[in-house]
Amino acid sequence: MKPALISDDTRPRVEPAGLSACFEAIWPDVSGLLPPEAVAAVAAGAATADSEGRPCRDSLEVLRALGWPGLPVPVKLLGGGASLAQCCAAQRALGAADPALAIALNMHLFSVGLMVEHWKRRADVSWLLLEAIASQGRIVASAFAEPHLGGSVSRSTLRARRSPGGFRLSGLKRPCSLAAEADLVCFQMQVEGEDEVLVALLPTDAPGLTVQRSWDAMGMRGSGSETVRFDDCLVPDELIYYRAPAGQDDDEILAAGVIWFSLTSTACYLGVAQAAMDSARATLAGSRINHLAATRDRLPSYQGAIGDHTGALLTLESACASLAALMGQGGSPQALLPMCLAVKQQAMEVVPNAIAAAIEACGGMAYSRSLPLERLWRDAQAIRFHPPTRASTRQYLGRVALGLPAQLDLDEAAPQLEKLDESGR
Amino acid sequence: MKPALISDDTRPRVEPAGLSACFEAIWPDVSGLLPPEAVAAVAAGAATADSEGRPCRDSLEVLRALGWPGLPVPVKLLGGGASLAQCCAAQRALGAADPALAIALNMHLFSVGLMVEHWKRRADVSWLLLEAIASQGRIVASAFAEPHLGGSVSRSTLRARRSPGGFRLSGLKRPCSLAAEADLVCFQMQVEGEDEVLVALLPTDAPGLTVQRSWDAMGMRGSGSETVRFDDCLVPDELIYYRAPAGQDDDEILAAGVIWFSLTSTACYLGVAQAAMDSARATLAGSRINHLAATRDRLPSYQGAIGDHTGALLTLESACASLAALMGQGGSPQALLPMCLAVKQQAMEVVPNAIAAAIEACGGMAYSRSLPLERLWRDAQAIRFHPPTRASTRQYLGRVALGLPAQLDLDEAAPQLEKLDESGR
Amino acid sequence: MKPALISDDTRPRVEPAGLSACFEAIWPDVSGLLPPEAVAAVAAGAATADSEGRPCRDSLEVLRALGWPGLPVPVKLLGGGASLAQCCAAQRALGAADPALAIALNMHLFSVGLMVEHWKRRADVSWLLLEAIASQGRIVASAFAEPHLGGSVSRSTLRARRSPGGFRLSGLKRPCSLAAEADLVCFQMQVEGEDEVLVALLPTDAPGLTVQRSWDAMGMRGSGSETVRFDDCLVPDELIYYRAPAGQDDDEILAAGVIWFSLTSTACYLGVAQAAMDSARATLAGSRINHLAATRDRLPSYQGAIGDHTGALLTLESACASLAALMGQGGSPQALLPMCLAVKQQAMEVVPNAIAAAIEACGGMAYSRSLPLERLWRDAQAIRFHPPTRASTRQYLGRVALGLPAQLDLDEAAPQLEKLDESGR
Amino acid sequence: MKPALISDDTRPRVEPAGLSACFEAIWPDVSGLLPPEAVAAVAAGAATADSEGRPCRDSLEVLRALGWPGLPVPVKLLGGGASLAQCCAAQRALGAADPALAIALNMHLFSVGLMVEHWKRRADVSWLLLEAIASQGRIVASAFAEPHLGGSVSRSTLRARRSPGGFRLSGLKRPCSLAAEADLVCFQMQVEGEDEVLVALLPTDAPGLTVQRSWDAMGMRGSGSETVRFDDCLVPDELIYYRAPAGQDDDEILAAGVIWFSLTSTACYLGVAQAAMDSARATLAGSRINHLAATRDRLPSYQGAIGDHTGALLTLESACASLAALMGQGGSPQALLPMCLAVKQQAMEVVPNAIAAAIEACGGMAYSRSLPLERLWRDAQAIRFHPPTRASTRQYLGRVALGLPAQLDLDEAAPQLEKLDESGR
Repeated sequence: MKPALISDDTRPRVEPAGLSACFEAIWPDVSGLLPPEAVAAVAAGAATADSEGRPCRDSLEVLRALGWPGLPVPVKLLGGGASLAQCCAAQRALGAADPALAIALNMHLFSVGLMVEHWKRRADVSWLLLEAIASQGRIVASAFAEPHLGGSVSRSTLRARRSPGGFRLSGLKRPCSLAAEADLVCFQMQVEGEDEVLVALLPTDAPGLTVQRSWDAMGMRGSGSETVRFDDCLVPDELIYYRAPAGQDDDEILAAGVIWFSLTSTACYLGVAQAAMDSARATLAGSRINHLAATRDRLPSYQGAIGDHTGALLTLESACASLAALMGQGGSPQALLPMCLAVKQQAMEVVPNAIAAAIEACGGMAYSRSLPLERLWRDAQAIRFHPPTRASTRQYLGRVALGLPAQLDLDEAAPQLEKLDESGR
Repeated sequence: MKPALISDDTRPRVEPAGLSACFEAIWPDVSGLLPPEAVAAVAAGAATADSEGRPCRDSLEVLRALGWPGLPVPVKLLGGGASLAQCCAAQRALGAADPALAIALNMHLFSVGLMVEHWKRRADVSWLLLEAIASQGRIVASAFAEPHLGGSVSRSTLRARRSPGGFRLSGLKRPCSLAAEADLVCFQMQVEGEDEVLVALLPTDAPGLTVQRSWDAMGMRGSGSETVRFDDCLVPDELIYYRAPAGQDDDEILAAGVIWFSLTSTACYLGVAQAAMDSARATLAGSRINHLAATRDRLPSYQGAIGDHTGALLTLESACASLAALMGQGGSPQALLPMCLAVKQQAMEVVPNAIAAAIEACGGMAYSRSLPLERLWRDAQAIRFHPPTRASTRQYLGRVALGLPAQLDLDEAAPQLEKLDESGR
Repeated sequence: MKPALISDDTRPRVEPAGLSACFEAIWPDVSGLLPPEAVAAVAAGAATADSEGRPCRDSLEVLRALGWPGLPVPVKLLGGGASLAQCCAAQRALGAADPALAIALNMHLFSVGLMVEHWKRRADVSWLLLEAIASQGRIVASAFAEPHLGGSVSRSTLRARRSPGGFRLSGLKRPCSLAAEADLVCFQMQVEGEDEVLVALLPTDAPGLTVQRSWDAMGMRGSGSETVRFDDCLVPDELIYYRAPAGQDDDEILAAGVIWFSLTSTACYLGVAQAAMDSARATLAGSRINHLAATRDRLPSYQGAIGDHTGALLTLESACASLAALMGQGGSPQALLPMCLAVKQQAMEVVPNAIAAAIEACGGMAYSRSLPLERLWRDAQAIRFHPPTRASTRQYLGRVALGLPAQLDLDEAAPQLEKLDESGR
Repeated sequence: MKPALISDDTRPRVEPAGLSACFEAIWPDVSGLLPPEAVAAVAAGAATADSEGRPCRDSLEVLRALGWPGLPVPVKLLGGGASLAQCCAAQRALGAADPALAIALNMHLFSVGLMVEHWKRRADVSWLLLEAIASQGRIVASAFAEPHLGGSVSRSTLRARRSPGGFRLSGLKRPCSLAAEADLVCFQMQVEGEDEVLVALLPTDAPGLTVQRSWDAMGMRGSGSETVRFDDCLVPDELIYYRAPAGQDDDEILAAGVIWFSLTSTACYLGVAQAAMDSARATLAGSRINHLAATRDRLPSYQGAIGDHTGALLTLESACASLAALMGQGGSPQALLPMCLAVKQQAMEVVPNAIAAAIEACGGMAYSRSLPLERLWRDAQAIRFHPPTRASTRQYLGRVALGLPAQLDLDEAAPQLEKLDESGR
C-alpha cells in the first residue's frame, strides 16, 4: 500500500469564502423570482418609509409587477409556483432590503400559503380564490391580531352574529399590516354563543369595513399595520373558508399555516440580520483605532464578538432553510411543527442579540441615525411580538419534549393568587 | 366562489407527536446499519465502562460484527457505504447509548471519513487502505492531540527526523481514544527543520510505539483516551498519506475532514442530550410535588424550562442533519465549512445548557449516581474540549462574516503585555 | 485660578492589584475566626473526602476546636459572636478549601442563624439552646429536605401524631448533611389532620431516629448528606421551638432564616468559584501554545473569556457581602429578602458558568482527575438544588416586581392539562 | 429547656413589600437633594426632549436652581457635599425621570467628581474651580470622546501645539453631551511630538471653540451630545489641571474618576430600568388575555419572565450601591476599580436584557410610541457605548483575575492578519 504523496500544487485549494457562499449553499436561488434590480429598488425606499411611517407604494408596485402576490400559488393556478423554501429565500432578500415591507407582505404570504395548503388537501373551489390572487395581483392583509387575544392563533374575541346569508360582525382588529394597501382582508371571528372560530375573506371595500390609521411604532414603521374596524359588517357564507372549534389547534392545515408563518417570518429577520451584518462590516472596516494602528475588523476582540453571533445565525439559517425544504418535499406538518416553532423561538433570541452585538462593536456611531444600523435594530425588535408568543411556544416545546399533549395556547393559572384575588385583595 | 365548509370530522387531525417523530423527519433511518438490539447492547455496557474507566470491549465487538469500522467506506471497497448524514444518525444513536464509546469511535470515523474524502478526489491507491479497514474491521485511533498544540488542526509539536525509508519519530500524543483497542493509529508530525506536516498511519504494534494508561477523567471515562508514545519509531514513507505546510488549512480535504468531525461529533452529543432528556422526562413524570398535587412534568414552570432548551436543541438538530445531507450531495467543503463549524460551536453552548437545565428541573435526585443523568452530564462536558477550540472558531467565524481571510488556528497577540514580559517581569 | 500641574513622580500610583485586594475591600477579615492554618488543614482533606464519599472528620475536629459550631452565637451566650457578614466570609474561605464540608456546615449555620434571629426577637429560653451549641461545640444537622416537597421551605410531607408529652413521628428526611456526624438534628413536620408545621430539635441518638447511608452523588461527596429515618420517634413538646401554618412564609423569622441561608450558601459557592479561578490561573499560566509562542493566560481570547465571568462574579461578591452587612446592621428582613433571593438566584447562573468557562479555557487537561478543577466543577453543580428552587424564586421575584403578593412556594397549575388528565388520557 | 411556642398572633408578620422597600434599604435617601416635585418636573419634559432631539432647558433650570452642578462639591466649597452613593441615588432618580438628561448631566458629574478626588489628594488651588462651579451653578461638558479613539480613557487623537501662555488646539470632539448648554468644557489633548496627555477646562465661549449640531441618534435624543470644534483655540496653561503619559492609566485619580463614572452611569441606567419596569407593571396589569380570564401579570409565565431579570437587576443594584458607599468611606480606588468596572460591564448585559424582556412580555403594545416603553428601550441601548468598552473591560478584568498587569486600553493584535495586510491584500 503506497498512497501517493500529495504535493502542494495539486491539492484543491480553498479560497477564503465569505458568508454569501454559505447562503448560496443552503438557500435556493430566487433571482428569477426577485431580480437584484427589484431588490435594489425596494431597498431604496426603506429609509423614507421608516421616517414617514407609511409603506413604500413604489416598492409595492415593483413587487406586484413581478407577480409577488401569487408567489406561492401553483403555476397551474397562474401563480409563481414558489416552494416554501423559495418563499423563504425571497422573504430573506426582501427583509434585507426593506424589513417593514417584508414583514407586512409576510402576512399576505402566510394567508396565501395557508390557502395553498388547504387547496392541496381538498377537492373544493378554493382554487378560484388562489387564481384570482395570482392573476390579478391581489394583496391579502391578515387581520388576525386583536387586543386581549394574548397571541392565540385559534381564537377570536370578536363575536359574529348569524344573519341572512352570513354573519354580522363588529369590532376591531389590530395591528393589520398593509390594511390600507390591501385588496382583501383575511380574518377570524367567533360565532356568538358558540365555541366555533370562522376564518373568512372580505374585500377591503366591503360596506362596514374601514381602516383607521393607528400605526406609529418604534420600528417596522413602513409596514402600515393599521386598525381594521368592522361596523355591523356582513360576512357572506361563501367567503368563509375555514372553521374549527375555538382553541383547537391540532389541525393539519393550521399546523401547515403556522409552519409557513414561522419559517417565512424567520427568513425576513434573517434578512434583517444580514443587512445589519453587512452594514456593520463596512463600519468596522472603516473604523480605525489610532493607538492600536488598526481598524476594528482587524482586531481579535471584534472578530470574536462578531463570530459568536455568526455561529448562532448560521445554525439558524441552516435549520430554517432545511425545514422549509422538508415541508416542500411533503413532510408531515405534525412532525415538522415543533421544529419550525423551535426555529422561530430561537430566532427571537439570536437575531436581536446578533444585531445588538454588531452595533455595539461599531461603537457610538452605530447609534446615530446617519447609519442604517439603528433602523435595522429598531425593526428587528418586532421579532419579539409575533404569535405564537415566547411563553406559549416554550410551553408547547416543553410538552412535546415531555411527551405530553401540547397546544399553541398558553395553558396556565396561579391558583393561590386567584384565591387572593377572589378574597378581595 | 363558495369554498366548502370544513366540518370537524373530515379535517385531518394532528395526533400529539413526540420528539421522535421530529427526529425521524430530519434524520435518515439507520436501523439497518445499527439495529435497535445492537444499540441496546451498547447501552447496557455504558455504566460499567464509566465506573471502570475502560471502554466496553463487548460493545466494540458488537459494532465490529456489524461492520462499524467500514461504515463510511464505499460499498465497492467492501464498506457500509454510509453517507455523512447516515454516519451522523448512527453516531447520534450511539451517543445516546454509550457516549464515551461513541465519541471514541468518532475519532475513527473522522480518520476514515477523511480518507474517503481523499479517495473521492484522487486516483491513487488509498482505496487499498479503505478496503482493508472495511473488510478486516480495523479500528483506527486518531492521535492528533498533543500537549502545547492549543487545538491547532494543522500543526504538530513532534519533530520527525528523516531516516532511510521514512522518518524516525519520538514523542507523546494524548489523549488518543481507543489507543489500546485500535489496530491502527493515525497521526500527524512535523518534519524537523522544515515547515511541513505529515499525516501517517501505523499499526499499533509497530516497534517503538507503546500505549500508556493515563486516562482518568471526569467523564467520557469509557473512551480509553490514553497516551501514545513514540520512541524512535520508524514511520515508513508508504504509510504517509498526506502532507501540507504547517498551519495551512485552506485545503479542501482538510476542510472536508473538519466538516466530518464537526458534524459527527455534534451528532454524538445530540445523542447524549436526547438520552438526558429521555431520562429527565421519566424522572419529572415520577416526581410528585405534594402541595401542588402534580408531578413536575405537569407544571408550566418545568415545561417552560425544558421547552427553552428543546427549542435550541431542535434548531441544532435540523442544522446538523441538513448540513450533513448537503455535504453528502456533493456540497462544496469551502462553503459548508463555516456553517459546520457554526453548528459545532453552537453545540458547545446548547448541549451542556440543555442537560444542566434538565438535571436542575429534576431536583437533587438527578445529582445522585443512582440515575444516569449525572453520568450523562459528566460525559457531555467533554464537548468543550474538541478542537477547533471555541476561541479559534469564533475568530474564524467572525473573520468569515467580516470578509477577511480566516484560518482555524487562533491568530492573536497582546503586544503591550509582551513588552512587559520582555522587560523582565 | 491656577491648578498645580501634576508631575509624574508625585502622582499616587496604582500598583496592579489582583483579585485578593478586591475581596479584602468588601469582605470582613475573618482570619481571627478561621486562621489560615485551619483553612489549609481543611483543604488538605478535600480530595480524600471526595473520593471516599465521606466527610473529613479531621477537618470537622479542626473546626470544632476553633468553636465553629457557635460561630454566630452571641458572645454573651459563649459563642463566636460572628455577624452574618463574618459568617459569609468564613464560609467563603471554607468553600474554597473543602466545598462539601462547607456546604454541609452551612446547614448547621442556617439552623443556628435562624435560632439567633429568633432569640433576638423573643424573650424566651432559646438562649439555653444557643449556649449549649456554642459551649459544647454541638453540630446541628438540618433535616428539612424531603422527597415530594418540591423545595417548599414552609411545609412537610411528614405527619406527626399527637402523643402524651409531644408528637410521634415516622418518615424519611433526605438529603441531610452531616447526619452521621451531628449531635442534634433540626427538622420540620406537619401535625396530622392540621395545617400546622412544627420545627423541632432532637439529639441524633434519640430512640427511633437512625441514619441510613444513602449519599453517593456526583459532587459534594464529602458532605455526608445521608437519610434520617424516624420510626415512631417521640418529639417532646419542649424541643419544638417554632410553629406556623403550612405554606405560610410571611414571617420575619423565616424571612431572616432564608436570608441567612441564601447569603451563606452563596458565599460557599463564591469560595468554590475562587478556588476554581485560582487553579485555572495556574493552569493557564503553565499551558503554552507553541505556535503562538505564548502561554494561554497571555492571549487576549483567554483573558477575555475569563474576564466576562470575572465581571459577573465580582458583581455577585459585592452584592452578597453588602446585603450580609446590611442584615447585620439591623436591616429589615422584609426589605432584604427579595435582594438576598436575587443574589442566590444569580449565583445559580454565574458560578457554574464561570467555572465551566475557566475549565474550558484550560483545555482537556482540566477534564482530568489530576487537577482539582474537575472536582470543583462537580461540587459547584450542587448550587442548582438548594431550595427555594429557581422556579419558585423567579416567580417570587417577578411578583415582587409586579407589586403582587409573593410567596416562596411555587404557585401554578395547567388547567387544560389537568382536564385531559382527569378525562383519562 | 422549653422554648415558648410561638402563636400566630404574636409573630412579626411580613407585609408583601414591593421593590421600593428594597431600594430604600440599599440606597441613601436623596429626597432632600432632589425633591419628588423636581423629579416630576424633569420627567414631564422627557418625551418632548426625545421628539425634538434637544435637552429640556426647563429641566436644566430646575436642577440648577437646586444646586445640581455643585452636588458632589464639598459643603465648605459651597457645594452640596453629596457622597458618591448619594450622587448615584440622585442619578438613579433622574435616570428614571429623563434618561437623556441624566446621562448628559452624568458627564458633568464625572468631571466634577474627578476634580473632587483630585482636590482631596492635593493641597493645590483646584478648590477655586470647585467653588466656582458650585456657587455659580456652572455646568461642565465633558469632551473626552473622539473619533478613532476606540474608547481609550487615557489618550487623545488631538495634537496641541505649544504656544506662548499655553497650547493651540484644533480638532473635533464628539459626542459631547450638553455642549450647547454648558458653561465650561473639560477635555483632554495630546502634546504634539510628545507622549503626554493634558486635561484642561475652557469656557464654552472661548475664542476658537464652537459647537456644531450633529446629534441625531436613536435614543438619548435629549442629551444634546453635539460636536465641539476647536479652531486654533488657545488653551492657557493655568486651565490645564492634569497631565499624564499617554496610555497610562495606573493613576489613583484617574482610577477614582473611572469609578465615579462607572457607578453613576450604572445608576442612571438602573433608573431607566426601573422606569421601564414600572411602566411594564402597569401595562401587564391592564393587559387581559381573555381565554385565560386573567391579566398578564397574574400568569406564572409572565411573572417568571419578569422575575428572571428582577434577580439580575437587584443583584446589580446592591453591588452598585455598596461599592459607591465603600468609595465614599475612603476605600482604595485601586482595589475598588475592578469591581466598579465589573458592575458597569454587568449593567451592559443586565439592563438592556431586562428592558427587552419587559417589553416583550407586554406584547405589541409596548412597541408603539403611545407608551413610554419604546423610548426607554431606545435610551437604554446607549449603555453599550460608554467607554471603557466591553472589549477592553473584559480584557482588564480577565487580566486582574489572571494576576497580570492590566490597563484600560485594549491591548491586542492579529499578527498573521497583519502579515497578510502588509503583503498587499
